[in-house]
Amino acid sequence: MKRWDRVAIVGVGLIGGSLGLDLLRRNLAREVIGIGRRPEPLRLALERRLITHAADTIAEGVAEADLVVVCTPVDRIAACVLEAAAACPAQCLLTDAGSTKGALVGQLDEQLPPAARFVGSHPLAGSHRSGPQAAVPDLFVGRTVVVTPTARTLPADEAAICQLWQSLDARVVRLSPDDHDRLVAYSSHLPHLAASALAAVTPKEARPLVAGGWLDTTRIAAADAELWTQIFLANRGHALTALAGYEKLLRSLRRALERGDAAKIEQILTKARRTRDAVGS
Amino acid sequence: MKRWDRVAIVGVGLIGGSLGLDLLRRNLAREVIGIGRRPEPLRLALERRLITHAADTIAEGVAEADLVVVCTPVDRIAACVLEAAAACPAQCLLTDAGSTKGALVGQLDEQLPPAARFVGSHPLAGSHRSGPQAAVPDLFVGRTVVVTPTARTLPADEAAICQLWQSLDARVVRLSPDDHDRLVAYSSHLPHLAASALAAVTPKEARPLVAGGWLDTTRIAAADAELWTQIFLANRGHALTALAGYEKLLRSLRRALERGDAAKIEQILTKARRTRDAVGS
Repeated sequence: MKRWDRVAIVGVGLIGGSLGLDLLRRNLAREVIGIGRRPEPLRLALERRLITHAADTIAEGVAEADLVVVCTPVDRIAACVLEAAAACPAQCLLTDAGSTKGALVGQLDEQLPPAARFVGSHPLAGSHRSGPQAAVPDLFVGRTVVVTPTARTLPADEAAICQLWQSLDARVVRLSPDDHDRLVAYSSHLPHLAASALAAVTPKEARPLVAGGWLDTTRIAAADAELWTQIFLANRGHALTALAGYEKLLRSLRRALERGDAAKIEQILTKARRTRDAVGS
Repeated sequence: MKRWDRVAIVGVGLIGGSLGLDLLRRNLAREVIGIGRRPEPLRLALERRLITHAADTIAEGVAEADLVVVCTPVDRIAACVLEAAAACPAQCLLTDAGSTKGALVGQLDEQLPPAARFVGSHPLAGSHRSGPQAAVPDLFVGRTVVVTPTARTLPADEAAICQLWQSLDARVVRLSPDDHDRLVAYSSHLPHLAASALAAVTPKEARPLVAGGWLDTTRIAAADAELWTQIFLANRGHALTALAGYEKLLRSLRRALERGDAAKIEQILTKARRTRDAVGS
């Protein structure tokens, strides 16, 4: 298992904080430098031993790193990677943890210096919790991490980034940035839109009557609103396609319910049940 | 705490089976007679000690009962209550566990003999699991049970049915049958439609990329398709109103996403988050 000498993590929230914690706990990194603009999350990350050092600028934090992982909200990833690439050592690897990949990886392919060694990642390990207080050990165990190489990616770099996530016991899936975005529109972004619309449309007087079904179905609606707005906008095209498909199916359900068509309703529910059962718990 | 001498439960699935189990475990009933058309669930219920006796007809099972609880799928509740009321002793109390109340309670108010002592109940304790194998102890602890008295209900009978659920540590809410149906359309039926449509629209190739958000949001879609089709049809008017409101909000989200209106998206997500946070885990 590769041991990193100095890992710089930009953004020490749920993902970045848990990553630092695991790299240190598993003895996979000698030092983890947390980088952030605000002092409070860094202080908490140090206190919780998610990182060993803190830096308030990227240039300072990545200066001697052999790995940089950018775990900021999606709308800031590109700028952070570009800044890190300009300041880190030549042999340093760079990756990110962004929820959308197409636009980001495309922009970086264009704007990064040819020698920069960036490979995109997306660990599917988010939840409705956020910040360094939400970081937990073993967050990535059994989780899927999508790695998104392009024509520009060196095979050795791709392998090293895959091994990074595998060393945390994640399951790595390789996809092109566009395939990633098309599929997470269904697996992640549409669920979020569906859950949020459901929570938002629930009248106050119905709250005392919610039970397991409502609680499960709306859980992800408690996530950070600003963060997710940026994710939807960063994957607008694919998110709109998924949303249109969802609206169409709801319209079918509504029309079947209007005309009392039990067979049609049951057919849709059965398809849903089979999909849900095929995926597991 | 009232101790029942002989409780007859029609339908020994998740709800009926858990009810029998708790009444026996808590020594709140001397005998529990499970009634069902098929021998296999009754055999399993006896084996799991959810019931003490089994009967294959309602007339036989309720003959000496002091409480009858009908826990069948909604489309069979009215017929079962009518049959039980015709065969049980005069002092016997009757209730049900149906997910919709307006049409059912209205029909029973009209068709039951004037002396019959029925009070509607809806324990909000369902899940995607079903059958006697899904029955668990303490299913009702901390759960809400809606009791739906009408002008015809005797106050003493209403109190006795409330006490039944309270003796299992449930929280009782009294509502008119129509208010119940209007509110569960949002708290239960709409989540089910939303979750099922989401599971059904997810393409197979996106399955390897699902994570916590999709899993939570679609969990209830694994429930029994036939059972839920009947529930939606039994509450068609209110379910359609809730569904129309949901479709309208999704349309707003889609339009905001189309025009890149971050403020509008964030406003809806923030409203959703506040509602979710107000309800708890």
